[in-house]
Amino acid sequence: MRCQVAIIGGGPSGLLLGQLLHGQGIDAVVLERRSRDYVLGRIRAGVLEQGLVGLMEEAGVAERLHAEGHKHNGTVIVHPGGSFRVDFRELTGRPVVVYGQTEVTRDLYDARDAAGLMTEFGAEDVVIHGADTDAPHVTYRVGDEARRLDCDFVAGCDGFHGVSRRTIPAALRREFEKTYPFGWLGVLSESPPVGDELIYAGAEGGFALCSMRNDRLSRYYVQCPLTDRPEDWSDEAFWAELRHRLPADVAGRLVTGPVIEKSIAPLRSFVTEPMQWGRLFLCGDAAHIVPPTGAKGLNTAASDVNYLYRALTGYYASGDRAGLDSYSQKALGRIWKAERFSWWFSSLMHRFPGQDGFDLRMREAELAFLAENEAQQRAFAENYVGLPY
Amino acid sequence: MRCQVAIIGGGPSGLLLGQLLHGQGIDAVVLERRSRDYVLGRIRAGVLEQGLVGLMEEAGVAERLHAEGHKHNGTVIVHPGGSFRVDFRELTGRPVVVYGQTEVTRDLYDARDAAGLMTEFGAEDVVIHGADTDAPHVTYRVGDEARRLDCDFVAGCDGFHGVSRRTIPAALRREFEKTYPFGWLGVLSESPPVGDELIYAGAEGGFALCSMRNDRLSRYYVQCPLTDRPEDWSDEAFWAELRHRLPADVAGRLVTGPVIEKSIAPLRSFVTEPMQWGRLFLCGDAAHIVPPTGAKGLNTAASDVNYLYRALTGYYASGDRAGLDSYSQKALGRIWKAERFSWWFSSLMHRFPGQDGFDLRMREAELAFLAENEAQQRAFAENYVGLPY
Repeated sequence: MRCQVAIIGGGPSGLLLGQLLHGQGIDAVVLERRSRDYVLGRIRAGVLEQGLVGLMEEAGVAERLHAEGHKHNGTVIVHPGGSFRVDFRELTGRPVVVYGQTEVTRDLYDARDAAGLMTEFGAEDVVIHGADTDAPHVTYRVGDEARRLDCDFVAGCDGFHGVSRRTIPAALRREFEKTYPFGWLGVLSESPPVGDELIYAGAEGGFALCSMRNDRLSRYYVQCPLTDRPEDWSDEAFWAELRHRLPADVAGRLVTGPVIEKSIAPLRSFVTEPMQWGRLFLCGDAAHIVPPTGAKGLNTAASDVNYLYRALTGYYASGDRAGLDSYSQKALGRIWKAERFSWWFSSLMHRFPGQDGFDLRMREAELAFLAENEAQQRAFAENYVGLPY
Repeated sequence: MRCQVAIIGGGPSGLLLGQLLHGQGIDAVVLERRSRDYVLGRIRAGVLEQGLVGLMEEAGVAERLHAEGHKHNGTVIVHPGGSFRVDFRELTGRPVVVYGQTEVTRDLYDARDAAGLMTEFGAEDVVIHGADTDAPHVTYRVGDEARRLDCDFVAGCDGFHGVSRRTIPAALRREFEKTYPFGWLGVLSESPPVGDELIYAGAEGGFALCSMRNDRLSRYYVQCPLTDRPEDWSDEAFWAELRHRLPADVAGRLVTGPVIEKSIAPLRSFVTEPMQWGRLFLCGDAAHIVPPTGAKGLNTAASDVNYLYRALTGYYASGDRAGLDSYSQKALGRIWKAERFSWWFSSLMHRFPGQDGFDLRMREAELAFLAENEAQQRAFAENYVGLPY
């Protein structure tokens, strides 16, 4: 089999790239190790920057997003000294859109089906060959059958554990990592959200986040030790801890419901450099991870897709290699700023073991300054709604 | 002897407070342990916020400041990725004024003399009595003579090593401190400054600062290990290291001259809470220290003087105790923000032992964001020129 772009990974970044390329008449095959149902079973939060919304529009898959997504014009930040709202719309002219990552993926699969585009599910043992030559190809296995896909370029959209990043020789890669000494205990509850907008709470006892899937499904998180297991937390203990970290008026409004999912996720910052090697280009989690505070995961993947899509379009339209040659540099320039924002916002809102009185006062002063300074709020809002591509 | 306000310490904050109170007909005596010549021999940098300039005007001592001070409308920040200028005037409408702290002190002494106000030099063994009563008094010794000063209030302006802070019972005080694992090697050079504005350089090898006293006297600093001694650094070694940390064009313009002072200063953040106890009020270094990056030392002292001056004026004008009662809270609210800015700017611009690749990328991303984001620059500039009182 042969195509112009082999896309490794059928998550949202690979699918979005494929759909965008299709719109430019560029032929891409998506290889996905799992089944479609498995991919659609992965629950992820979804706070979409306008940049991603624009790419969904450009790919022709934004109809349901516009109908069902909720525009959020601001967010609420709670800290020991009080609480305040950051008005994204007023400060930047742009909202964010809350729309589940699963829904984004579903819309992209539906569009892929409608266009009759090729997706290989159950593609195991993927190996990328000749990425540093002019004629790369990918071998893989579906069931017992060995298959081969020849291509001009390979887009590595196969996540942190995928083969793409490791295809770049270790000697050429530099990896940057920070782990955080706590996790997020998350609960999905069949109850209406406590607020119309997200509430980020940096309480003395630790971080909490009030989020939502829709009008009937709420998503709540509390910072917890990494040694905790979900089964250590009864529903009652979770609700009590969440209430404890929220202001009294918010806690008083909180409606609890049946908990249909409970899990603990670690927080990590990770970036690999460079994001390209010959004709292999990394996108999204394959190249970088952000802690979830600030909701940049899917949006940083979209940022990469944007640069790679434009680079490939330029190449196929006119043979211009400039976009491809500068892909890693351009993508990383924006990625590092999103990494910084995610790291900074995580550092600001969580309690860290070993923080002394001075550290806590610095945190309080930073929150007090953010609460009252318009320029600082604008810088925050510009990062939150997404820096320009 | 009796006065309304006993001011402990004849440095710039005590003198400024005395002069402002005098303008309101409030009688203050200044007790200074050293001689006037000693106080005027202490060399300190001087980057004055408009708030301090305004207080100097209100005290009637701004004539020479306006004639000889240099307005700086911006500053230059150098980092491994390039350099950029932050335009204070454009972003905030306000400049800073470069005018030596020694000159501020001299102007205040001259005004004090002209008004015939009482200053006790050589006041040793100062003890503050009854600060928690309605009738405090201060005892001290001049030469062999024991003296006593009765007063309504005591202003503790006697610096970090003074007696005022330690007069507040230890059980009532909470102290916050951060030390930094490096110092500033500073040189005063008889040569014209390399630039019209300050240049802050966060080079890979460490921090450097190009500052000035006047058109013929330059002040330069480089970050150095705390274990270094000034005599370890020849003039040639200093100039070589400074040039190495500056961009080639700036290093090329650097004119060196005779080095008339060379010293190493540690960096420290320190705050004590509360800043008042009964009728004793702390101002300036007696209550807090900032690292010099961002030039907030004298300006935070002026901030305290502002609040205490207005509180005392309110009390003597109408018996209103509100300003006095809330002094610590108001002063600390602003102090912590200046502490945060000084800590953040120090952290951003210096190399710290043990920083890993991720830490350095965070620093680069923060500088890249500051270089290009107007809101972030405005927040920086508003802090640099001084937050409102």
